[in-house]
Amino acid sequence: MTEIILFVLKINEMNYQEIASTMVINAWNAEIKYTNATLEKISDEQLMQEIALGRNRGIYLLGHLVAVHDLMLPLLRFDEVQHKDYRKIFIESPDKAIGNLPSADVLRKQWHEINNKLQSYIDSLPAEEWFTRHSSVSEEDFVKEPHRNRLNILLSRTAHLSNHRGQIVLLTPNT
Amino acid sequence: MTEIILFVLKINEMNYQEIASTMVINAWNAEIKYTNATLEKISDEQLMQEIALGRNRGIYLLGHLVAVHDLMLPLLRFDEVQHKDYRKIFIESPDKAIGNLPSADVLRKQWHEINNKLQSYIDSLPAEEWFTRHSSVSEEDFVKEPHRNRLNILLSRTAHLSNHRGQIVLLTPNT
Repeated sequence: MTEIILFVLKINEMNYQEIASTMVINAWNAEIKYTNATLEKISDEQLMQEIALGRNRGIYLLGHLVAVHDLMLPLLRFDEVQHKDYRKIFIESPDKAIGNLPSADVLRKQWHEINNKLQSYIDSLPAEEWFTRHSSVSEEDFVKEPHRNRLNILLSRTAHLSNHRGQIVLLTPNT
Repeated sequence: MTEIILFVLKINEMNYQEIASTMVINAWNAEIKYTNATLEKISDEQLMQEIALGRNRGIYLLGHLVAVHDLMLPLLRFDEVQHKDYRKIFIESPDKAIGNLPSADVLRKQWHEINNKLQSYIDSLPAEEWFTRHSSVSEEDFVKEPHRNRLNILLSRTAHLSNHRGQIVLLTPNT
């Protein structure tokens, strides 16, 4: 009896965990796709421009996105950070505070590399694993706040990417 | 026996439906809060400016957000659209195509009204109801694609709001 209940429970849990993780992963995939399409319309020269007068340059925003997505690797308990110095350059420092940023060419390559790396982990994570804690919440706190899970990181980073994509798109040719 | 299984199933479903809906509702609430804080820093005069040279004006983006959030009412099966003409003005038409837009004052008021209306429905919707279909998917299709639910609308509109907030913030005074 208990075994049957546990089995049915397990099947059912999977169902809602799968629906919810599919929703968030689809939103993430779409946002990555839109951002890549936007970046393809922008030349390296245009990427050096400010998105609006006196604001961040495209190159800084691209580096910022690389840095934030890189940090998702440890946060999602997938892997180690790949570019340790990027937190300081692209998150803790504002644009124009650091003289020599990596080139547009290098950042574009790293952008695809980090997303491909994330994607391989995302695609292979079982649905129920998305509902386990991310690395910056303690096991104690997680019991009280089960929404602070790995899927929530993917959800918040999707909105973060959408926010900066809305800015980077301003560098595309004005039609 | 069947009754016990169904009861335990129900409790358990609630659990994952509640965790997932809490995650998405929290993200939505945060995005609304950030957007309101941004709008408060922008004067009505600044709202009439383009977010970048030759791009949409703040006033158009605010109207666009009112129109998109208004359309969430029928899409989420909450209520009827409040501003029927806004789809044409702020979604189907680009900025500057229509001469007389509603004033900043009117749009700010409608922005808060529509979000407050949405919020009251959002706050009172039971977790399991978030996993029922939204109004633009048929019952047949929903069986095959259960992720096309009401929660998915809230998720995609959160990213949409974040996208335009990243643009509207460019109208705040440059510090």
